[in-house]
Amino acid sequence: MSKPLFLRALDGEATARPPVWFMRQAGRYLPEYRELRSQAPDFVAFCLNPEMAAEATLQPMRRLGFDASIVFADILLIPRALGQDVWFEKGEGPRLGALPELSRMNDLAAGAGEALSQVGETLSRVRSALGPDKALIGFCGAPWTVATYMLDGQGAKGERASVRALAYSEPERVDALLDTLVEASAHYLAMQARSGADALKIFESWAEGLPDDLFERLVMKPHQKLVTRLRELGVDLPLIGFPRGSAALAERYGRDVAVTAVALDTACPLEVGRRVQKIKPIQGALDPLLLRAGGPLLDRRVDELMAAWGEGPWVFNLGHGILPDTPIAHVEQVLKRIGAA
Amino acid sequence: MSKPLFLRALDGEATARPPVWFMRQAGRYLPEYRELRSQAPDFVAFCLNPEMAAEATLQPMRRLGFDASIVFADILLIPRALGQDVWFEKGEGPRLGALPELSRMNDLAAGAGEALSQVGETLSRVRSALGPDKALIGFCGAPWTVATYMLDGQGAKGERASVRALAYSEPERVDALLDTLVEASAHYLAMQARSGADALKIFESWAEGLPDDLFERLVMKPHQKLVTRLRELGVDLPLIGFPRGSAALAERYGRDVAVTAVALDTACPLEVGRRVQKIKPIQGALDPLLLRAGGPLLDRRVDELMAAWGEGPWVFNLGHGILPDTPIAHVEQVLKRIGAA
Repeated sequence: MSKPLFLRALDGEATARPPVWFMRQAGRYLPEYRELRSQAPDFVAFCLNPEMAAEATLQPMRRLGFDASIVFADILLIPRALGQDVWFEKGEGPRLGALPELSRMNDLAAGAGEALSQVGETLSRVRSALGPDKALIGFCGAPWTVATYMLDGQGAKGERASVRALAYSEPERVDALLDTLVEASAHYLAMQARSGADALKIFESWAEGLPDDLFERLVMKPHQKLVTRLRELGVDLPLIGFPRGSAALAERYGRDVAVTAVALDTACPLEVGRRVQKIKPIQGALDPLLLRAGGPLLDRRVDELMAAWGEGPWVFNLGHGILPDTPIAHVEQVLKRIGAA
Repeated sequence: MSKPLFLRALDGEATARPPVWFMRQAGRYLPEYRELRSQAPDFVAFCLNPEMAAEATLQPMRRLGFDASIVFADILLIPRALGQDVWFEKGEGPRLGALPELSRMNDLAAGAGEALSQVGETLSRVRSALGPDKALIGFCGAPWTVATYMLDGQGAKGERASVRALAYSEPERVDALLDTLVEASAHYLAMQARSGADALKIFESWAEGLPDDLFERLVMKPHQKLVTRLRELGVDLPLIGFPRGSAALAERYGRDVAVTAVALDTACPLEVGRRVQKIKPIQGALDPLLLRAGGPLLDRRVDELMAAWGEGPWVFNLGHGILPDTPIAHVEQVLKRIGAA
């Protein structure tokens, strides 16, 4: 049985066409998702309901036939596993309760996988429903990104300035929290690996705006520690790092962090992608706003991406999550254009 | 009489120490500014009052002795000169009225300098008050950045997504507005040059998040047109381009846009700055959050910047505006560390 196209690209193979999946492909642009979601008023409960989360994960696979699925979950499940309350205010995003004592969180870190076993159950269900040619991705939020929420109590405004300020004014406190998050994330991802994931992705949604010294300290070091810890825990799956908003440092990241592949964001120039691609497989990076707009400009940009990165190894994706008001026809237009439909 | 240090660096000279000024150096971190500002409730009126604006411009020069001053004004004076109402809601930022017809704005573009002659009067006053060793910078907002406000009616949220979407869905409309802004900005800057400015800076505050094709179209092309138009109008001053948030494209920008120098932002890696510096003089890029935090980490980073870029040509600056709650002692700490005080 041949290996899924997605995993072959992560192996460094120059595939005939790029495998494709979209960030947030299980989401509100799909009417069947909106219908499903309406049955569970609470978002955290929805993520932790294996039946519903598995169904959400599978919906875009059935309708659109992506090459990879990503487990329906949220990056803020980890704070919950560490004893911090997390809830979502409708239309306002996440809210978090008081930050627990560090020692308390350290006690809970190794148990993060068990605490979130529902996500494992979702993965098992999805894996058995997927065809052998499809891959299943598990994920976590990266330590710094998760820390910005945990320290601020919500999504901090303006490039996470309030939390970046803490990284300067209370460096030991921030670095200790990152270490705790590395440990919890390693156990959480290891549980996902045991539950059927074929690859794992580390989402650093808030790498943007960081000077290079902070990028090294808050992004690269924790990612490297997480990779090392995962290998120690026996996880041998491909790992995708996504340091969003740091295109000028993507090459340094790709060279110095032992992830398997680097996911690039919307603002990553094509030539930077080519340089990273010489180091390891890349993933990305169509502008979700252009996907929503559609039309001839969309075709042209897809062609530009194909011309620049098509020799591979490359996983076709968006540079950020698909927007809720994206017409499904535009997704189909792209899949057709790259030969995936 | 020797040329001001700031202008020597822009000439490409490797100065013994970098000249220094800070974005928003005339601002709320200074008690004398807060006192002055409290006398004029309306911000636009404050900007257009030459006596007050000149005083605000000169305050940091008297107290801290920067090498360059920048005229106190706002990037949203241009929409006003084109017939669009602009006002500031306290604590909420700018608000703009209905966008005028393009033909009406085109009729007004060549008169933008005269319409904002108060800024010229401010420059004249400041220039005669400054010592011969100090330089005076005039500026405008770059076309795309100003357009994001004009099209959205305020500072558009989330990397200007609503306006970036327009660049895809109504490309002719957006490009035509950029052309109008190039023309108006050229006349506005030419007036500033006639009024005593020694150098001119183009502030592209919202270059971040743009894919490279949009960066070429919305940032680089209009900047190049503006430079060409300024030279046609007989302006021979040094020009600083500041494409904030686009470090991965800073080298391309420096190579392909005929500005005299490139200003870099907080997130520009040191090695990228070095590469740009081989093309033309650079300016930047200390993190304003680190300046506010102070302490040994601040000293260390200043030393790193000096080690990386100190051979010049380089103008020491922040990567973004100084924050209102920055202790003045931290500014003095930096000036001393680089040998400017």
